[in-house]
Amino acid sequence: MADTHPPVAVPFATGDYTARMRRVVDSATAAGLDGVLVTPGPDLVWLTGYQPTAITERLTMLFLTREHEPTLLVPTLERPDAAAAPGTADLALTDWRDGADPYAAASTLLRPAARYGVSDSAWALHLLALQHLMPSARFASLTQALAMMRAVKDENELARLAAAGAAADATYLEILKVRFAGRKERDVAGDLADLLLGFGHEQVDFTVVGSGPNGANPHHEAGDRTIEEGDAIVLDFGGLMSGYGSDTSRTVSVGEPSARVREVHEIVRLAQQAGVDAVRPGGACQEIDRAARRVITEAGYGEQFIHRTGHGIGVTTHEPPYMVEGEEQELVPGMCFSVEPGIYLAGEFGVRIEDIVAVTDDGGRRLNSTSRSLQIVE
Amino acid sequence: MADTHPPVAVPFATGDYTARMRRVVDSATAAGLDGVLVTPGPDLVWLTGYQPTAITERLTMLFLTREHEPTLLVPTLERPDAAAAPGTADLALTDWRDGADPYAAASTLLRPAARYGVSDSAWALHLLALQHLMPSARFASLTQALAMMRAVKDENELARLAAAGAAADATYLEILKVRFAGRKERDVAGDLADLLLGFGHEQVDFTVVGSGPNGANPHHEAGDRTIEEGDAIVLDFGGLMSGYGSDTSRTVSVGEPSARVREVHEIVRLAQQAGVDAVRPGGACQEIDRAARRVITEAGYGEQFIHRTGHGIGVTTHEPPYMVEGEEQELVPGMCFSVEPGIYLAGEFGVRIEDIVAVTDDGGRRLNSTSRSLQIVE
Repeated sequence: MADTHPPVAVPFATGDYTARMRRVVDSATAAGLDGVLVTPGPDLVWLTGYQPTAITERLTMLFLTREHEPTLLVPTLERPDAAAAPGTADLALTDWRDGADPYAAASTLLRPAARYGVSDSAWALHLLALQHLMPSARFASLTQALAMMRAVKDENELARLAAAGAAADATYLEILKVRFAGRKERDVAGDLADLLLGFGHEQVDFTVVGSGPNGANPHHEAGDRTIEEGDAIVLDFGGLMSGYGSDTSRTVSVGEPSARVREVHEIVRLAQQAGVDAVRPGGACQEIDRAARRVITEAGYGEQFIHRTGHGIGVTTHEPPYMVEGEEQELVPGMCFSVEPGIYLAGEFGVRIEDIVAVTDDGGRRLNSTSRSLQIVE
Repeated sequence: MADTHPPVAVPFATGDYTARMRRVVDSATAAGLDGVLVTPGPDLVWLTGYQPTAITERLTMLFLTREHEPTLLVPTLERPDAAAAPGTADLALTDWRDGADPYAAASTLLRPAARYGVSDSAWALHLLALQHLMPSARFASLTQALAMMRAVKDENELARLAAAGAAADATYLEILKVRFAGRKERDVAGDLADLLLGFGHEQVDFTVVGSGPNGANPHHEAGDRTIEEGDAIVLDFGGLMSGYGSDTSRTVSVGEPSARVREVHEIVRLAQQAGVDAVRPGGACQEIDRAARRVITEAGYGEQFIHRTGHGIGVTTHEPPYMVEGEEQELVPGMCFSVEPGIYLAGEFGVRIEDIVAVTDDGGRRLNSTSRSLQIVE
């Protein structure tokens, strides 16, 4: 594996984080918000590099408003960890002690009748407490109010996503060489996880091995089913490398595929190609879904394509923008997302093909480059 | 390890889950709620045994109300997983497809001007969407409205917590035999994780190894510091076994302890004993905190005890009730929580001693039984 060893990521500097925070305040203002309230999770990681050991009922919140400098409120006993994060050097760090009211502390950083965006995954516990304390304030989720906050990636982020994609591709090439027939799905899933880690991932998020009828459940992970000769197998795997996501799917055949598997695989391959071909700056997210779906619908399998065509990727493996009917968000160079149509035949098999695509100045660039033809495994 | 092999947990039956759901509707009614809305996480695991592969922006919600039978709304593509969960056989399962509005589907199960409890960790994204659709409805977090929903454990749950505690104790006894001096904290943390898994845990939640000055940061996990002769080391580890939590802390000395370490350790030991002695049905949670804190304060270290005395444990390793000043919740037989006072001397060392305690009919029963005296390791 020496020559596929991943490049070491260029570290983000404090200034990178500070610039992101400043940009968020500006775009929040443009979106009619008075500020953004960020809780632990991907938004906070992206803005400060800080991830508490665990997300608990203890309030941790970053306040990005025009009146105050960026301020991070943390529980006293987590303050040293927060202070050590790469993006917290330039912000005001403040803390609250067990037994004190963290929401009272939070409200001193807010205006009573203003409008704030809140991290999608902020706990209801925290939001309800703030709403109770500030009944005139209005809150909107970031998906509602500022969905594209993390969507456009800079060069450093794109390099990390490309490196993660290359590691996922290396994983796929290796998994083609392992034995499938006679082994359980979860054993192959274990191989996928080991390979992702071996090729440089620090975190494995999912390793789907959907063999035969299990492949017809798009969210099946991997179970006790023993893989048989003739199975079509959906492989869908990814995780984080240098903090950025990979996510790729290929469908393989154990031994010679049936004519039906070949036919359905080819339809999905063409649909995926159509989706990728539709990627262009200025286009709308829903156009990617329409382009892929049209191919499948015209082939008579529209009812068997039961999910949207794609989702964004960045510091998570699943985030806005979504490639789905009704999403009119404009594509912007630097956005990265999956294009992953599928056909699911209950009781028989499933097929899904997925690449991550980055929007460029004149189209889309795949960050996965392994063959999308139907590969035969043993 | 053969004779410490954990007993196999008695499976929960569908009827167990159904009884829990019924009890929640009853206690919600008694608390003035018209129902409870449960999102993925510990509440949903406890009520249905269902845990989606990932918690995403796609709405999954269990509706426990008086008007409707228990109803679980899931994304179409996760329906097979939900249907396969042990506690969903008796409830109504319904789904929504990508592109449809899940909140409209949710609102058909709710009354417009009613009052609902919501899982603490429900995403703000979902809550805000429901609030927008139903402006007359009122929502309260379960910590506000029904904090003790999962707090009182039945016999099966107590047996699992006891088994998890015994596995954590076995881990502690083994870790006393390993080499500490000259190794990095994270290597000992790795030993702790391996031992927890070896003694039957399926999930490791934390393995704190706070050596020397790192022990003075109660949330320090384990880092690159090389452990030295003479260090006091806070060990705090736990995870899930058969779905229920363990969490225990001991502080050890590498070689002969200083007089100061001995003195501080003894104060914490007495404080922990006082906390455990204060456990009795009918008492208030805050009395546990007061009893432990009094010992430390009277010894002159009150300012160095910077966290509350304990937290509940169950399907998570950290949940209500909290043993903290101001928490007047009455203790009830079957409640389980940590009693874990500590003293943190910045730049020097920390000491914490922690057991899980179950409330019995006439006091408290420790689920950890290893010696709380200062042990010396190599």
